Amino acid sequence: MTIQRHDSSGILSLAVEHGDTVYLAGIVEKLEQDIKGQTKEVLDEIDRLLAKCGTNKSKLLSATVYISDMAQKDAMNQAWLAWIDPKNPPTRACIAVELGSPTTLVEIVVP
Amino acid sequence: MTIQRHDSSGILSLAVEHGDTVYLAGIVEKLEQDIKGQTKEVLDEIDRLLAKCGTNKSKLLSATVYISDMAQKDAMNQAWLAWIDPKNPPTRACIAVELGSPTTLVEIVVP
Amino acid sequence: MTIQRHDSSGILSLAVEHGDTVYLAGIVEKLEQDIKGQTKEVLDEIDRLLAKCGTNKSKLLSATVYISDMAQKDAMNQAWLAWIDPKNPPTRACIAVELGSPTTLVEIVVP
Repeated sequence: MTIQRHDSSGILSLAVEHGDTVYLAGIVEKLEQDIKGQTKEVLDEIDRLLAKCGTNKSKLLSATVYISDMAQKDAMNQAWLAWIDPKNPPTRACIAVELGSPTTLVEIVVP
Repeated sequence: MTIQRHDSSGILSLAVEHGDTVYLAGIVEKLEQDIKGQTKEVLDEIDRLLAKCGTNKSKLLSATVYISDMAQKDAMNQAWLAWIDPKNPPTRACIAVELGSPTTLVEIVVP
Repeated sequence: MTIQRHDSSGILSLAVEHGDTVYLAGIVEKLEQDIKGQTKEVLDEIDRLLAKCGTNKSKLLSATVYISDMAQKDAMNQAWLAWIDPKNPPTRACIAVELGSPTTLVEIVVP
């Protein structure tokens, strides 16, 4: 099966295609936003990466949503619900962990 | 490759089939139980979802076990060991994180 | 699709092949090392498991790096950068969580 990498630096790729499966991590850059804004940015980035791989959010399989504070889950979900294809949602786990910086509030891994 | 979703709400699906691979998250509902009871409930839910996808636990590939307190890992493992097909165990990572509510003690993601 | 398991105990397998995809968890055993040493050990173990599955790090798809302390991320990254195939990096998420013991500093799951 072929492997195709996108937006690779020497340390990681932002997306990897393996046959019919796409792996990616949506990471926020504009850390001055609240979690709703950061989630929107991450989901826009996921849209961009999926498009690079010739696919889109209607084909999402699974998502792991890492947030820095479970008290912010509802605000994250507002951006998630505004974005998700309601007829084709992925499976999802949402857990609270420590992310890459104190102002990083969300990161989403697919699948 | 075909994608088939099961038990979808507008926010997530409980299981997604992609070709020969199944993605699911086992989530507990009866939060008044201890972690052993919650793990058993999650594993019963995984059995139910795998059956919906025409498969079973002898074909598990990988599992991520999220628990809320690493001190409870042994109690989780008691339910895991009682359930797992000992000839066909998946790879597994077990990490402690903050879950969806203070009384949610375990969640298991496959693969 | 065929499933092949490697280094299985009754509780988990260290690696599972499913068609063209390999699932594994790299776990450290020599806990007296610092995080850079532990990461090197985990990555050596990943090399060993990939080889058992007839593949190698140039075909990595995705990695989840669990560390016990985000302040140690740079030290983990030193071992990661020394190991990774810079032309073929996987997608990667790095989060801080509580691992299996207080002296376990890193664990890496693929994909």
